Amino acid sequence: MHPITYNAKAYSAASETSPLASTKIKRREPTDRDVQIEILFCGICHSDLHSVRNEWSEFMATNYPIVPGHEIVGRVTKVGSAVTKYKPGNVVAVGCMVDSDRTCPQCKADREQFCPNMVLTFNSPDKHLGGVTYGGYSESIVVDEHFVLRVPSNLNPAGAAPLLCAGITTFSPMRHWGVGKGKKVGVVGLGGLGHIRLGADEAVVSRNADEMQKNAGTFDFIIDTVSADHDINAYLNLLGVDGNLTLVGAPAEPLDVPAFSLIMRRRSFSGSAI
Amino acid sequence: MHPITYNAKAYSAASETSPLASTKIKRREPTDRDVQIEILFCGICHSDLHSVRNEWSEFMATNYPIVPGHEIVGRVTKVGSAVTKYKPGNVVAVGCMVDSDRTCPQCKADREQFCPNMVLTFNSPDKHLGGVTYGGYSESIVVDEHFVLRVPSNLNPAGAAPLLCAGITTFSPMRHWGVGKGKKVGVVGLGGLGHIRLGADEAVVSRNADEMQKNAGTFDFIIDTVSADHDINAYLNLLGVDGNLTLVGAPAEPLDVPAFSLIMRRRSFSGSAI
Repeated sequence: MHPITYNAKAYSAASETSPLASTKIKRREPTDRDVQIEILFCGICHSDLHSVRNEWSEFMATNYPIVPGHEIVGRVTKVGSAVTKYKPGNVVAVGCMVDSDRTCPQCKADREQFCPNMVLTFNSPDKHLGGVTYGGYSESIVVDEHFVLRVPSNLNPAGAAPLLCAGITTFSPMRHWGVGKGKKVGVVGLGGLGHIRLGADEAVVSRNADEMQKNAGTFDFIIDTVSADHDINAYLNLLGVDGNLTLVGAPAEPLDVPAFSLIMRRRSFSGSAI
Repeated sequence: MHPITYNAKAYSAASETSPLASTKIKRREPTDRDVQIEILFCGICHSDLHSVRNEWSEFMATNYPIVPGHEIVGRVTKVGSAVTKYKPGNVVAVGCMVDSDRTCPQCKADREQFCPNMVLTFNSPDKHLGGVTYGGYSESIVVDEHFVLRVPSNLNPAGAAPLLCAGITTFSPMRHWGVGKGKKVGVVGLGGLGHIRLGADEAVVSRNADEMQKNAGTFDFIIDTVSADHDINAYLNLLGVDGNLTLVGAPAEPLDVPAFSLIMRRRSFSGSAI
């Protein structure tokens, strides 16, 4: 069976050196469990840029043309016959994933982000149309209702878009590592991810050796949102006993980690994708 | 007040290029809470060699002369007037620490290994005699009873010595990271620390790319006992979702950690000293 498709406007890059350019892409007509969404807002995430420029080629090579975008907020325009959660007119959102196998232990534990067959919103094999998935830099997208989220009416839809990646990416590891009241938390980087966790009591300037020294060994948790090469050891040394630094930015080059910085105080250095 | 001292035979190194040589060192006569121990056995730990050669100069510079040794088993020869737990003739042991401040939150939580004023068995400031502490490459040592352990009579005293560092160093992080029944555990390195955790079901040869690939993403916990530079990423990639690799060896050079190896599967890379 050939899926029925329609054309949608989108911005795509044809190669790692091309600019994004206006184009038309095919989207599938909603199948039984699909939600068709008119995209109102889409955040611009550093991951979009890494992928467009194929800077993560070693781990996640880019297939061209690429339509990035995974911080999507829009309005439902049509739903499949089996969709129960949404109806036309609802304001909804789509994040980094559009599908998973639903049968593996991770999916059954509601941790679809670890499903070995997880389908990313862009640059993942598209099992409906072939080729790869196309993301939110487009006027329209069609997504299984399981991967569509409701946007509460009290949220500004434009402001909500970054929550779909930057927001959940920083919230998720804080939950996982048990960050709560009374913990001293640091945020490294003030870009798309880092600014989401603002509301800080204090700023420590990492180039100021005195300020860094004064804070050495005092943090319970640090979230590192930096996507460029940086001195991770300077931040590890800020952690106290059993402190954790979670990397959510993804520098292309490996980071230099001295053994003693982890061994002393039983620190841990971890990562988190979503 | 000048402490009363006695002479004890020991092996010490005078510089980072000197061999260990027989010498005499001063030990304090037991004060009220001290236990004097005739050393019967002392393990030779890679940390001893790192320190003798000043290979950890950046983190823990060596003061010469150095008397290494922190896997000590011996017999009590004398006790101070306030000692309650030991008496002459007991077979006892001393590990990596001989003192701490007893008043900090870590000490109060029975985690003296994280005390900011912890005194290591050798190469730490000696508050009784000045200079630095001297370790177990000696015929005798005097230690506060709080840092003396009883050796059960069913243990071979020579075989028990490595438990004081290699044993606890590998046991402690397994407890901390909740390793128990049903978990798939890997041990990297088969030296002083790694051999302690033998009893493996399977050996994976890290130079065999097929074997490594077959095991990718399958381990819950890996303990890495290697003290030389090595490709940590090869082992991180063996971890499954939420898997942890704990480093207990301490290579002198920083390790290269690719961000994606941590971010994917929410892996963590940590260290543990004791």
